[in-house]
Amino acid sequence: MKKSVAIIMGSKSDTEKVKPAVSMLDELGISHCLKIYSAHRTPVELAEFIKEVDESDEFEVIIAAAGMSAALPGVIASQTVKPVIGVPLSGSVLDGMDAVLSILQMPPGIPVATVGINAAKNAALQAASIISLHDEDVRKALLNYRADQKAKVLAANEEQI
Amino acid sequence: MKKSVAIIMGSKSDTEKVKPAVSMLDELGISHCLKIYSAHRTPVELAEFIKEVDESDEFEVIIAAAGMSAALPGVIASQTVKPVIGVPLSGSVLDGMDAVLSILQMPPGIPVATVGINAAKNAALQAASIISLHDEDVRKALLNYRADQKAKVLAANEEQI
Amino acid sequence: MKKSVAIIMGSKSDTEKVKPAVSMLDELGISHCLKIYSAHRTPVELAEFIKEVDESDEFEVIIAAAGMSAALPGVIASQTVKPVIGVPLSGSVLDGMDAVLSILQMPPGIPVATVGINAAKNAALQAASIISLHDEDVRKALLNYRADQKAKVLAANEEQI
Amino acid sequence: MKKSVAIIMGSKSDTEKVKPAVSMLDELGISHCLKIYSAHRTPVELAEFIKEVDESDEFEVIIAAAGMSAALPGVIASQTVKPVIGVPLSGSVLDGMDAVLSILQMPPGIPVATVGINAAKNAALQAASIISLHDEDVRKALLNYRADQKAKVLAANEEQI
Amino acid sequence: MKKSVAIIMGSKSDTEKVKPAVSMLDELGISHCLKIYSAHRTPVELAEFIKEVDESDEFEVIIAAAGMSAALPGVIASQTVKPVIGVPLSGSVLDGMDAVLSILQMPPGIPVATVGINAAKNAALQAASIISLHDEDVRKALLNYRADQKAKVLAANEEQI
Amino acid sequence: MKKSVAIIMGSKSDTEKVKPAVSMLDELGISHCLKIYSAHRTPVELAEFIKEVDESDEFEVIIAAAGMSAALPGVIASQTVKPVIGVPLSGSVLDGMDAVLSILQMPPGIPVATVGINAAKNAALQAASIISLHDEDVRKALLNYRADQKAKVLAANEEQI
Amino acid sequence: MKKSVAIIMGSKSDTEKVKPAVSMLDELGISHCLKIYSAHRTPVELAEFIKEVDESDEFEVIIAAAGMSAALPGVIASQTVKPVIGVPLSGSVLDGMDAVLSILQMPPGIPVATVGINAAKNAALQAASIISLHDEDVRKALLNYRADQKAKVLAANEEQI
Amino acid sequence: MKKSVAIIMGSKSDTEKVKPAVSMLDELGISHCLKIYSAHRTPVELAEFIKEVDESDEFEVIIAAAGMSAALPGVIASQTVKPVIGVPLSGSVLDGMDAVLSILQMPPGIPVATVGINAAKNAALQAASIISLHDEDVRKALLNYRADQKAKVLAANEEQI
Repeated sequence: MKKSVAIIMGSKSDTEKVKPAVSMLDELGISHCLKIYSAHRTPVELAEFIKEVDESDEFEVIIAAAGMSAALPGVIASQTVKPVIGVPLSGSVLDGMDAVLSILQMPPGIPVATVGINAAKNAALQAASIISLHDEDVRKALLNYRADQKAKVLAANEEQI
Repeated sequence: MKKSVAIIMGSKSDTEKVKPAVSMLDELGISHCLKIYSAHRTPVELAEFIKEVDESDEFEVIIAAAGMSAALPGVIASQTVKPVIGVPLSGSVLDGMDAVLSILQMPPGIPVATVGINAAKNAALQAASIISLHDEDVRKALLNYRADQKAKVLAANEEQI
Repeated sequence: MKKSVAIIMGSKSDTEKVKPAVSMLDELGISHCLKIYSAHRTPVELAEFIKEVDESDEFEVIIAAAGMSAALPGVIASQTVKPVIGVPLSGSVLDGMDAVLSILQMPPGIPVATVGINAAKNAALQAASIISLHDEDVRKALLNYRADQKAKVLAANEEQI
Repeated sequence: MKKSVAIIMGSKSDTEKVKPAVSMLDELGISHCLKIYSAHRTPVELAEFIKEVDESDEFEVIIAAAGMSAALPGVIASQTVKPVIGVPLSGSVLDGMDAVLSILQMPPGIPVATVGINAAKNAALQAASIISLHDEDVRKALLNYRADQKAKVLAANEEQI
Repeated sequence: MKKSVAIIMGSKSDTEKVKPAVSMLDELGISHCLKIYSAHRTPVELAEFIKEVDESDEFEVIIAAAGMSAALPGVIASQTVKPVIGVPLSGSVLDGMDAVLSILQMPPGIPVATVGINAAKNAALQAASIISLHDEDVRKALLNYRADQKAKVLAANEEQI
Repeated sequence: MKKSVAIIMGSKSDTEKVKPAVSMLDELGISHCLKIYSAHRTPVELAEFIKEVDESDEFEVIIAAAGMSAALPGVIASQTVKPVIGVPLSGSVLDGMDAVLSILQMPPGIPVATVGINAAKNAALQAASIISLHDEDVRKALLNYRADQKAKVLAANEEQI
Repeated sequence: MKKSVAIIMGSKSDTEKVKPAVSMLDELGISHCLKIYSAHRTPVELAEFIKEVDESDEFEVIIAAAGMSAALPGVIASQTVKPVIGVPLSGSVLDGMDAVLSILQMPPGIPVATVGINAAKNAALQAASIISLHDEDVRKALLNYRADQKAKVLAANEEQI
Repeated sequence: MKKSVAIIMGSKSDTEKVKPAVSMLDELGISHCLKIYSAHRTPVELAEFIKEVDESDEFEVIIAAAGMSAALPGVIASQTVKPVIGVPLSGSVLDGMDAVLSILQMPPGIPVATVGINAAKNAALQAASIISLHDEDVRKALLNYRADQKAKVLAANEEQI
């Protein structure tokens, strides 16, 4: 059975910033779902969904994106031992450093795998690298993606700069 | 019935930094309890205790102290509409700025009343100012405390500096 | 008698950033007044107004919003023991971190309950949580507001993302 | 076959800060090796070791710890699609924020799963959560560890604070 | 009549950090007084003292030193048009950056002449440069001090480094 | 003889940010000149101009505005004992914090009186406060300006907010 | 034989920010090539190009420009002992401070000569200063450039400001 | 004729932090002199020394180390077109970030090659890389140093960690 990624964002307004994760997973042939749950506004429903993901054989990785005092990834990580990837989102001020510190500086015992600010695409690639450990198709898709990236850089050298 | 303050800290190792809140409340004649609950390690027990505080006529204010990715005050605030005062604690690095941003930058809808870094004493005074709105004894204690502070400053001017 | 909130901002130019506090209090059915006093330009008139608020049975909470070297909330807090909520406003540079530190890092003895940068709406909710301790209508309004927030998040999951 | 974690640190002087990862993996029953390779001083030998890890069925996750301009985790991530967990280490100045930004802000395409400053223990737990996806023993060890953490917090509430 | 400098610090605990201002003024032959007034704890007495300084022919410059949310220099500057020099003091966290931003970022209309963190000595020299405009003795003392500084640097070159 | 202020900016491109100093001095009836000298590009001509200002009875205060690695105010201060007011200007990145630290953190012995970021108007007011010590007209102009500021704040309260 | 500068940027999207280096070298009569190599996407091809530059008599200096977790300059410096000048580029967030710390804070043993944020022009001038040590034409071009800069500043003083 | 490096530090108290540059140059067989000149206290003598270095065939590179508002490297760079390497030194507060920004953010036209905080050793290596362009002995010494560094890292892997 193919493994999926559960993407959770804290607010509908985060959609544009989270979309690159969706596209990247599509490109790599990894199935996924996208949900909106707030750690502060819907703690009970969030817990129910995490429980579902945690117990399901389908989901292997959770991506959680949030801005400001971004409690979402840590709250999720505290309710499952499956890998949680946190994406700090920039807000109207502070360039996302509030979200970086909120997600990164987890207490000893409950880690979140943090990627760069607004780096939803890299979160998808991080999820893919985990899934690729036991899924040769995904591993190949990742290697192809890397080869494409490399080819693009080298091609740019051929063009008139 | 006299009102109490529930003090919650995220880890037993925070005790020394939280003690000034206890002493200050004692000095002001405000009853209190001190509990250790981690937003990440004991979410269920924390929720039970918040529910108890929320439904009790006894507790009027909650003080929550935490360091690093300090989700505790926000998680508490999301589960009660009673006032929650957050105390960002400094850790081994970053001088507490991680905790400040984690506690301060709450999303719209769920505020935490943040005080300064390691300012447990001020958290107690903030709680007292809320209780004093309907408790003349506490109001008098607060006014006395302020008068004492003022007297100390003025007395220092009399001494040989 | 219903309790009111006194909102004070340091400059008329802060109006747009402070308006969400006014709207939120309106939505919760809490009466309020909005004043402009500068800690630096009108210290005497500010002191007179604080005295009025402090002695009045009407006002229960003060919200003070200011940017840059935001002395306003602290100066107000030094002249009353009623709860003062500080709203750090972003300026043309520094994203409001100057105001955050000016409001948050109060000396021991005189706390200000600080909310997030430009978080006037959360300041109103913080004030409401204090008033709700002795006003069942406000408590219900707050609980309704939270339920609405939750419903919006859950509804967003139903829509095509 | 049981899966291993390859731990790489940039300098022998990082040993003390990296040790908690070793202990945590031991506690969870996960085999591991600990190597010293510098992205800047031994790029060729580092590449050889990464190739070995990448091609081996034994290693499932790489933990890379480095301070200052911490290129190590990113350089490793660029040479394998296996998951790479980066641990930013604090140096003699800047509290590790140089390492955080160097590790976290990877360009699109090559993610590193960053944990908190000096959070070697959490890096081990992050690795374990990945391995636990296909190793029931590790999953149980993780769940036990969490239960222990929870029990310690609750026990602390029973003691005289 | 010789001109004096009024030095005000926010707390007796700032004495050690403020002393270099006293020594420097002594060395330059400028009379001075040293007072402790808190903007938050003794606003009335502070205002009385500022009024006294403002109306006195004796005092020409005010030095105000404070840490954390350092409102003192700005509050003083709002009550006199005599020059106010602010000295941001470092506290137990943040290395004095809270005080720098609180003192430096004054609103348009009420400036404070800010010197470096803990730079009480430079505050005294700044005051001396103002007094020296109409006091040839102080001007000479300043020039001598500069010549001494220069001589010390040049002498260090002669020694075995 | 009426006293003047010498305004020096590091680059012609700073003109717009420096103009408020010119307008403010005009409004206060203080004569001034505006020059462009770079500490790095025209050190010799800068030194000549500082010497001229230093020896002239006309000039009492120097305002120096610069961005980025803003050496200008400090270099000027090292060549005169007349008061030097530094204005840190924001550049295309960093919001002026580079200029703040470059101007503020002068070594012991050579102070610069720093005002806020882009606060050219406050620099003019700071210069005026120095000149007002021996110029009753400027003192009156300053007091009038403050009264106007106060009146504007109070008037704003009368309007419909 | 005239010496050249090899300019390497991490991504084609950096072209606009790197162009000022090209123009400046052109203006100074220094030949150059401009290549795109990513430390993370094309490590092998980058290494080949560095080897070519390192062994060539033609190239004397390397300029490497990169943003975010800017490993490029350090990786280059680790593979040659020729001087490497690093240009930190600003990204969509953080104003380039991530790139500054990634480039500046190199471990002991492998330095990168860092210039300011987006300061490609200064990188070219830095390269020119190195080449000018053994190339009188470049030295003269640099001196002329400086004279022009000076003339422009002085001319600005003559215009109506 | 063998080339030398002129090392200049702003204060005698910087000696301990600057010594690693001296040792490194000694180890590489590069002659050098060590001088103390302050940009602010001894501008004339500094200018004389820079002129001497600029006109001498002996000196090829200048290393300038300074803390706080570190004007020294930039002032030197403005008076010579020989390469200037700046070493930002940490002070009693701010971990050297004030010096980093003061040295790094030079205006367009006058670059300083900045190395890491307190990285005097890397400054020496940077100077050596410049000298090595026309000095085969220094090139060999640098390559040997790198080989040693590499050997030490690899040897550490052999020891019991």
